[in-house]
Amino acid sequence: MIWHQKEISLAAKGRGFHLVTDEILKHIPEIKKIKIGTAHIFIKHTSASLAINENADPSVRIDLETHFNKIIPEDMPYYQHNTEGSDDMPAHIKSVVIGSSLLIPITNGRLNLGTWQGIYLCEHRDYGGQRKIVITISGE
Amino acid sequence: MIWHQKEISLAAKGRGFHLVTDEILKHIPEIKKIKIGTAHIFIKHTSASLAINENADPSVRIDLETHFNKIIPEDMPYYQHNTEGSDDMPAHIKSVVIGSSLLIPITNGRLNLGTWQGIYLCEHRDYGGQRKIVITISGE
Amino acid sequence: MIWHQKEISLAAKGRGFHLVTDEILKHIPEIKKIKIGTAHIFIKHTSASLAINENADPSVRIDLETHFNKIIPEDMPYYQHNTEGSDDMPAHIKSVVIGSSLLIPITNGRLNLGTWQGIYLCEHRDYGGQRKIVITISGE
Repeated sequence: MIWHQKEISLAAKGRGFHLVTDEILKHIPEIKKIKIGTAHIFIKHTSASLAINENADPSVRIDLETHFNKIIPEDMPYYQHNTEGSDDMPAHIKSVVIGSSLLIPITNGRLNLGTWQGIYLCEHRDYGGQRKIVITISGE
Repeated sequence: MIWHQKEISLAAKGRGFHLVTDEILKHIPEIKKIKIGTAHIFIKHTSASLAINENADPSVRIDLETHFNKIIPEDMPYYQHNTEGSDDMPAHIKSVVIGSSLLIPITNGRLNLGTWQGIYLCEHRDYGGQRKIVITISGE
Repeated sequence: MIWHQKEISLAAKGRGFHLVTDEILKHIPEIKKIKIGTAHIFIKHTSASLAINENADPSVRIDLETHFNKIIPEDMPYYQHNTEGSDDMPAHIKSVVIGSSLLIPITNGRLNLGTWQGIYLCEHRDYGGQRKIVITISGE
């Protein structure tokens, strides 16, 4: 039985959906030792989130940003939490909708993702800065 | 390797988003024994959900309730599932959007949450009653 | 400590929300050996998702499909990713909103779901075909 945990920082990114599969994988070479297991990826913030989606055509990531801004807009008159900037309350809502963590199977030393799947950092603030991530891999 | 599981009931709460980090933690003192691991928190209901978000300013929780009611309203004319009250079908949709479980890293005997992160019980019914939760912690 | 992992295919289903609890359970008889643990169910696609919701009244699943089509419609003029059919970009957004995996507690050899909870395959494409799922169960 193997447990391995590491806290990392992802480099600051602009608002939007970003493919970070490789930026995450480079921190967990220990994954190679696991034949069957899972990788847990957790973001320690309430205004950014993690998702899995299309790893090829970047237009998917652009459309995700556009559509999330339509259904969770800035400056709605009923927002009471509005002292931290127009982008702040929508960021909290998007984070609740998309989620703060991912759990991905590990098979034969690799993340067992589908052909078209990649890991997204979803940055919901205009200037979110670095984002802290805790990666926990376990298996045998 | 440690596995520990407990089924608990969270006290009945009004419709809305509620911070329950402490109400959950008091049931799992065993977490102190785990250096590296994960805590899984699962809600056994289809009209309430679990999320992680802002643990300080309560206006975030109010705005979440308001905005979810905007995008997932009651009494839409196309709802076919409408015999259990106006709040029932929206509750099912919100539960699918937000999710039924959380997985949080454990580090050195504590939940490794970010500074501003807390655990929310998202109660989508007007009178949901007590909510059953299964907590499973594992690690070494 | 038990780890068991299996990759399966769920039979092709029409667009909509489908109850697949039994179709999944029949592939993991090994669950009976686990007293305390978790079952991880992961879909290897970016245009279908997994959720937990109402296992009885099928009108809930119909309303979910209807409402998700309202808040994430086809053919929005701002979609740039539109070469794979009108149902494709909405499928990616729905997948990000609903999520690609589930983690369910195992207790005394069974999934510890609530009375009304079942596992949904959420098929967001008109003709999505078979869907590959990785099931990982662990526990003691």
